[in-house]
Parts: sequence; structure tokens; C-alpha cells
Amino acid sequence: MTFAPIDHARRVEMLQARLREGLGNGCDALLFTDLADVRWLTGFTGSHGWAAVRADSLVLGTDGRYGERALAETAGTGAVVHAETTRAALHDRLVACLTPSTGVGLDPAGTSHAEWRRLSGDLPLEPMDSLVRTQRSTKDDAEIQRMQAAAAAADAALAEVEPLLFATIDEPVTETDIRNELEYRMRRHGADDRSYETIVASGPDHGARPHHDAARRTILEGDTVIIDVGALVDGYHSDMTRSYVIGEPTQQQREVYALVEAAQRRGIEALRPGVAARTVDAACRDLFVGAGYGDWYVHGTGHGVGLEIHEPPFHSRVSDETVPEGSVVTVEPGLYRVGFGGVRIEDLLVVTSHGAHPLTHTPPRPFPV
Amino acid sequence: MTFAPIDHARRVEMLQARLREGLGNGCDALLFTDLADVRWLTGFTGSHGWAAVRADSLVLGTDGRYGERALAETAGTGAVVHAETTRAALHDRLVACLTPSTGVGLDPAGTSHAEWRRLSGDLPLEPMDSLVRTQRSTKDDAEIQRMQAAAAAADAALAEVEPLLFATIDEPVTETDIRNELEYRMRRHGADDRSYETIVASGPDHGARPHHDAARRTILEGDTVIIDVGALVDGYHSDMTRSYVIGEPTQQQREVYALVEAAQRRGIEALRPGVAARTVDAACRDLFVGAGYGDWYVHGTGHGVGLEIHEPPFHSRVSDETVPEGSVVTVEPGLYRVGFGGVRIEDLLVVTSHGAHPLTHTPPRPFPV
Repeated sequence: MTFAPIDHARRVEMLQARLREGLGNGCDALLFTDLADVRWLTGFTGSHGWAAVRADSLVLGTDGRYGERALAETAGTGAVVHAETTRAALHDRLVACLTPSTGVGLDPAGTSHAEWRRLSGDLPLEPMDSLVRTQRSTKDDAEIQRMQAAAAAADAALAEVEPLLFATIDEPVTETDIRNELEYRMRRHGADDRSYETIVASGPDHGARPHHDAARRTILEGDTVIIDVGALVDGYHSDMTRSYVIGEPTQQQREVYALVEAAQRRGIEALRPGVAARTVDAACRDLFVGAGYGDWYVHGTGHGVGLEIHEPPFHSRVSDETVPEGSVVTVEPGLYRVGFGGVRIEDLLVVTSHGAHPLTHTPPRPFPV
Repeated sequence: MTFAPIDHARRVEMLQARLREGLGNGCDALLFTDLADVRWLTGFTGSHGWAAVRADSLVLGTDGRYGERALAETAGTGAVVHAETTRAALHDRLVACLTPSTGVGLDPAGTSHAEWRRLSGDLPLEPMDSLVRTQRSTKDDAEIQRMQAAAAAADAALAEVEPLLFATIDEPVTETDIRNELEYRMRRHGADDRSYETIVASGPDHGARPHHDAARRTILEGDTVIIDVGALVDGYHSDMTRSYVIGEPTQQQREVYALVEAAQRRGIEALRPGVAARTVDAACRDLFVGAGYGDWYVHGTGHGVGLEIHEPPFHSRVSDETVPEGSVVTVEPGLYRVGFGGVRIEDLLVVTSHGAHPLTHTPPRPFPV
């Protein structure tokens, strides 16, 4: 697949324009150590590096493994690349790049306390939420194109694997069988990789653990099965969950499934630009509480997705975030109970002024037909 | 596969015994937030949680997704489990567990600066290297058994995939084809998962990037190819690299390969209990420098492996660590140059008083026979 290029040069220019206007906290420089921030800003995809930004310069620091890659990936952004072979040399390089400075903005949530202490001996650090992390929530078309391809790869793989799941009564499959097939097939459908470890959680015990890793358990008649699967395409993630009942569903299985489906619909309807993330959570949660299932709901209702599988906004009860236009988020209510198992339904959606547009297209097929 | 159980109760007892003896820095409690530390100590495998240890108690805190799992996994350690549904409630629970305290030891390298600031408002934090992380370097038999199985799964997968690689002149394969087959086959050979994203780096450009992710590049006659692949078994990693030349090797390809092979042999010979990690690095590096290839060697010589793919000791030029008896480490020298490509050879080894015992058993087969 060929995708529209991502315009990193424009991102760097916008950030530098903000630095020229003044940040209001005395900072004339910004340091980014979070790798998703560094990638979003510069295009660098290595597993170790930082970006230092001033009004008129961008420096990317990394280690000897990534020198070639960094040069190739950041071409066009005006970045000066320094690949140093020791941590001490890389530290010295960073200090040299940012000296003198009136203040260096750095996100304390993305930096270890040890690193903060080391840097603050040599640089005038200012704790500051990452401007890039905030900006990352709003996706541009080139990013949505990649996430669309990622979601499509997961859809295609799941469509191929569902028949194996429903056939388990006759030809037994295990949780790990299903997981292995999904991850293999996503790549055949264009994914660079899975987005995260695929979850296949079946039966009254595993199904009751919302984030159970796949195990060598054979999936049996009567089980609930939760499959949570996503793909990675050019650094961008997708995220989807579908739930199933093997064989003829019981009354309670039907009831719980219908409740989760209704809650998810309400959560999606609540999604609009500027809505409080906690409102999206409440849309699902209130329905469960009203139906007497409040204590079966043990997690939040969703999260942003992009270069990270979990990023702001987080739809939780206690969130004070809002959902920006152009963000890509999940809505994923679920109900779990030991002895019963679990049901979760999750779609990935783009938040637009015309409503939430799904990137997930797998139709819910909980029961065999 | 069934493995010997890991005795978490004994680990907790040993740590509590050290607390009873006194740590010498006024701490009467230890907090672990690094997930590998938490797992090593308690058995808990979730993706969010902490362990708080006092001389007579162990508390595991996590969120609502992992309550059931935490109870099951920590049974036998005497852990009290608290699964809280909000971050604020989990913070309050932690503070309550550790109040009053004369001092709470916490590793500043494994905690974000933001988290440190939040906790230090309510607890008497003391920066302290993690006692668990130090202890983790020394593997017990149950751990080595798992790493042996992980290494064997990677060996078996690579043996199956090498013929595809050598056949690429007649039946072209891409880097991602090779990667996909390796990851799929490791699982068929008993791995729970890959240990890390498999690296397949071929040709004069990709091969020159030591940590190049696999791309859709077709592997061609004349290429050098680096394959860096490991498996995950019950939480434990393996790590191996083999390098190849497609078709008849050139004089320089033979020379570079022989040099890396000789360097790796020297590195392995240097491995013994108590040796300085930098001595292992020097054993390889000095040979390269002497042969005029010093600037082709752009990374360190190896690292410990266990519940993390990279953990202490790190064999680098500037390391001040030693290599303990019973540690499991890599030795992985390599040479890289744009236009040439690259060669790296990496084995996983247990350090014993009788020398280094390999867990990797794939024979080097760089050229087709």
C-alpha cells in the first residue's frame, strides 16, 4: 500500500511558530523524549531518541544503531541529527544544543524521575504538558488513511477466522490457535504487525478477565468468547473487539449481549467534537447501572488511538478531557463475571462534525447462524 | 509444555527478611512500579499494577481489569490484592498501605517524574535502586528452563525458514515474508509469542541499519541478511541473531563474516562469573579496532535477558556492571556499513562457573552449501 506522505516539516514549522510567539512560561526551547511525540514531529521511528526544538532549530539525538535511519527519516524537516555511541555523550550533546536557554519545557509524565534529575542539573527544565501529545489527538487525512488500512486488515483477518471459531464444537480450536491465525492473517492483509497482543478470552473463567492473554484452552460449546484484535500500519494502530457465544446461547447470554450492544450504540451516539470524555463513559455506564449490571463493568469506555494504542482522550468516569474534532477513538463497553464469562464490543471511530464515522467494519455476528 | 513452578513465595520472604534486617537507609517499605519487578516478585502478569512490601506484608494494587487475574496469580505469596477502578482510588490505597512509614524505597529510573511528584506529596519516598531488578539478573533453574524453551522455539523456526531465504534467487521472498514465517512458526514450536519485533535486514542499505524493521524489500543475490529473532515463553525472552550472504559471497563478505565470528567467540570466552561487562565488550571491540573496522561497530556487545528483553548487565564500553553467576546474557558483535550491508552474530548464554553455556543452538550457516 502507498499512503499520502505525512508532512513533518509543517508540524515542525507550526511548533516553531508557537515558540516564536512565546509560550508564556519563559521557555524558549522544548524537549521531547516520548518516542511517539518524536515520531509524530520528525518522522523518526527508532526506539531511542529525543527531539530538541527551538524557534530556529530542530535537533534529533539518538544512538549509533539509528544514525542512518534518523537521517533518512527526518530529511525535509531541517533536523540536525546527532547519533552518539554512549549515553554520556548523548547527554552532553543535548545540554550543548539547549545551552543557553531561558527554560526547557519537558513533560514530567513522559520522563523518568532519574532522567529528570540528571537533566535538571544541567538544563533549566520546566514541567510542561507535551504540546505534541495534545496536538497528536487531532488526526490529519494521511494519518486516518493509515488507520483505515490497519482497521481493514483486522476486519479481513477476523472474517477469515470466525468460521474456525464457530466450528470448534466439531474441530476443537484453542485460544492461541485463534490468536495465531489472526496475527498471521492481518499481515497477509497488509498489516506491518499486530497493534498489540491479541486477546482471545473464552469460557466462564478466562472470559471474565477483560484483558486475559490467549492460553492453550480449547474453546467449548456454551462459552462466551472475546476477541480483541488490532493491526499496525506504518506506525498507526487499530483496535476492535467482537464477542461470541459458541453453540446455542442461553437466555442470560442473549440478555448480556443485547445490553452491551445497546450501551455501545449509546456511547457512539454520544461522540461529537468537544464532548466531555466522561459523557461518553456515562452514556454506556448509566445503561448498565440501570439494568442492574453496574458492578459487571470494570473498565473505562474507550481511548484515543494513533501512534500509540492508548492515547488521550480517555473516556473514563473521572476524565476531565474533551474529545476533539478529528480524533480517532474507541467505544468499548463490556460486562464480565466469573462463572458467566464476558462480552465486549469495540469499534474504532473518527470524530467529525457530522457524527462518528466507523473505521471498524466487521458486523457483529455473536451467534452462529 | 509444563515447567517447574516459580517460587514467588520464597522471593517475597527473602525480600522481607532483608527489610527486617534493615536496609541502612531508613526505609521500612519498598515500592515496585516496574512491571517486570512486580511479576518477578509476585507472579502478577497484568499490564498495570504495583507491589508494596513491608517486613510483614505484601500488597498488590491494580485496576479493575486485572482483579481476578491478580488474585489467581499471586496465590501463595500472602499478597493482599486491591483492584481499584480509578487512578485516584489506587493512589489513595497505596498511600494508606504505606502510612505510617519511616521511608519508602522506590527506583527513580522506573518511575516517571510526574508520578514521583504525586507520590512524594503523600509518602516519604527515598530514591533507591530496585533490589528486585538487581536480584533478577541471577536466574534460577525454573527460569532457565523457560528461556531454554524460548531459545529452542526460535532455533526450530529459523531452521524451517532458512531454506526459503537461500531459495530467494529462484523464488523471491521479501524481508516481511521471512519475518512473518518466523513469528508464526515460533508459536507452532511452543512459543507464546515473539520476544520482540523480528528484525530482517537485507542488502547494502537495510543491512547497514542494525535495527532495521522488516520491509517489503525482496531479498536479492549478493545481499547480506541479518535475522534477529527471539521467542517468549511464560514471560521469559530469548534473543538470537544469524547473518547470511545470498549467493556466492565476495571476498569482503567472507572477511567481515569471519571477523564477526572471531569477535563473538572472544566475547563468549570472556564471559565468566564476576567479569566486568565492559571486558566482554572490549573482547569484541578490540579485535574490530585492530582489524581496521572499529567505526563499523556502532552498538554495545550484549545485555542480560529474562523477563525483559534488555536488562542488566549491559556489555558496553562505559558499563560499570559485573556479570553475575547464573545470569543469562547475549554476546552480539556486528559490523555495518552503507553500501556493504551488515553482519551480526548473537547467542544467548548462561554464565556458570564452568564457562558460558549456550541456549542458542542454531549452527551458523552464512552461505548456502
